[in-house]
Amino acid sequence: MRAFLLHAGHSSLSVVPDPAPSQNEALLQIRLAGICNTDLEILKGYKGFSGILGHEFVATVESCAVDPSIEGKRVVGEINVSCHHCDMCLRGIPSQCRYRSAVGITGHDGAFADRMTLVRENLHVVPDTIDDEHAVFVEPLAAALSICNLAHIRPSDRVLLIGAGKLGLLCAQVLRLTGADVRVIARRSRPLELLKRWGIPVVAAEEIAAASFDVVVDCTGNAQGFEAALTYVRPRGTIVLKSTYEGTPAADLSRIAVSEIRVVGSRCGPFDAALRVLENRLVDVTSMIEASYPLSDMTHAIAHAGQPGVLKVLVRPD
Amino acid sequence: MRAFLLHAGHSSLSVVPDPAPSQNEALLQIRLAGICNTDLEILKGYKGFSGILGHEFVATVESCAVDPSIEGKRVVGEINVSCHHCDMCLRGIPSQCRYRSAVGITGHDGAFADRMTLVRENLHVVPDTIDDEHAVFVEPLAAALSICNLAHIRPSDRVLLIGAGKLGLLCAQVLRLTGADVRVIARRSRPLELLKRWGIPVVAAEEIAAASFDVVVDCTGNAQGFEAALTYVRPRGTIVLKSTYEGTPAADLSRIAVSEIRVVGSRCGPFDAALRVLENRLVDVTSMIEASYPLSDMTHAIAHAGQPGVLKVLVRPD
Repeated sequence: MRAFLLHAGHSSLSVVPDPAPSQNEALLQIRLAGICNTDLEILKGYKGFSGILGHEFVATVESCAVDPSIEGKRVVGEINVSCHHCDMCLRGIPSQCRYRSAVGITGHDGAFADRMTLVRENLHVVPDTIDDEHAVFVEPLAAALSICNLAHIRPSDRVLLIGAGKLGLLCAQVLRLTGADVRVIARRSRPLELLKRWGIPVVAAEEIAAASFDVVVDCTGNAQGFEAALTYVRPRGTIVLKSTYEGTPAADLSRIAVSEIRVVGSRCGPFDAALRVLENRLVDVTSMIEASYPLSDMTHAIAHAGQPGVLKVLVRPD
Repeated sequence: MRAFLLHAGHSSLSVVPDPAPSQNEALLQIRLAGICNTDLEILKGYKGFSGILGHEFVATVESCAVDPSIEGKRVVGEINVSCHHCDMCLRGIPSQCRYRSAVGITGHDGAFADRMTLVRENLHVVPDTIDDEHAVFVEPLAAALSICNLAHIRPSDRVLLIGAGKLGLLCAQVLRLTGADVRVIARRSRPLELLKRWGIPVVAAEEIAAASFDVVVDCTGNAQGFEAALTYVRPRGTIVLKSTYEGTPAADLSRIAVSEIRVVGSRCGPFDAALRVLENRLVDVTSMIEASYPLSDMTHAIAHAGQPGVLKVLVRPD
């Protein structure tokens, strides 16, 4: 089969043997995959990954020895493959498994390929009412929903979102569902257009009073985002960090203690909730699609996705 | 009266007019005051304070027009004087009042003096069963208790405390009351001796596995403390920041997002709870007293308190 392989810092579309599912795994035929900022970071060296990239996907189950009932069905898949035995698994937090692999990120081949394998327990069957172009957003939408799993966002809260990129726009839509008064700092034309369409108000950084927001969500992917969040959050307010980035922020952490601020890190989220939100048409994901490329044109797909301000680029087998 | 005045970066024991209480204030005669690290920081320029230093005290009410019933009684006093009108006051969090003054820290004269004034609402009458040497610890003990107000410390938690100074030792004792498995990183002989007496185990930094503690409380007062806390806290664990400090930590904040860590800042705490804890003899504060100086010898008191590893130095009118 074909696969977009990263090896020793070099990526290329290669021909590799079809993967062989282990006892608990299903063999999946990829229908559609999405390019995420994490993919772009990994291509720059983040995590030192070697293997097949890609962790946002919808697929058809080709075979599944452990559960033949899902063969032929469309599925999405959680990316963390956990050990079931470490303290984090036993705590009921398998996504933080000490010995996890993560699809297309660390120790597990991913979805920029014709086929991949994944353990049965990570698969969620996609209802017929959700088409592929929606289902491919389940993984990042779940990541956005994790904000509300880890922090209590109240309908009465004033919420500021910084960083209106791919993940940020999903977070903005999820936050709006809470009833909170959500404002977004955005500059690029495409996010501005979408936020306007969704009725989510934009605010200019210069207009924001210091220490004025109950909750600030940082989706910037850079250290300046955290510094800004510390400036805008009110005393006893909450900062949600969705960003990972290189480098350290020049932030005055004393403000955390003096103003008794809460900082909450958030990563992967609940797939079942993401499917419900999509099924109920509570968010608009398809407007975020910029382009779709065949797998054979993966290099152009990556180049397109890496352009500043570009939203979701999809990859389909051709 | 005599007062330890800080003005334009210079401190000295001076003779100043007796303070005149306003309508809502009581006039207090200081019985005993404590020197805190914050005092030492202020003397080095923190907050740019000018006025009479000192915010840990027990006093006798000399007069109180608004509530004569407390005249002659011993009191302790909360340090934040709030406006009652801003959003933080209306939220029920007057300690984070936008327009607050803070006794001996900002905009309000403090307790290193023969007399001071404070609004009636900030005063708590000290029960007869609590003597002055205990009551003078109410303010820092309340600050230690604020950890449990802002973070949920569970009896099943493994808790690491970094920074076994004045505040750290109070925090360690408060944390032990939760039933949690508390360990403390300590090197100096006096804290080691007290922790041993209290039955709180000490742990060497080299022995600690990365990402192994449910909760890490940083009382170090330096940026390295936060970096260490980020290393030792487990995925989905909690860091409590009790420290304020100059400078920025060279910390990898991406770990907050990836490991979904919660950081909680904590400052002043509940005086009523601190009085209950003292009345029930649940913590040992008097063992932390290193020395007591007369107000006339304030300069030596400050010098003593500033020596590395020295615990509580008290000041009494002579």
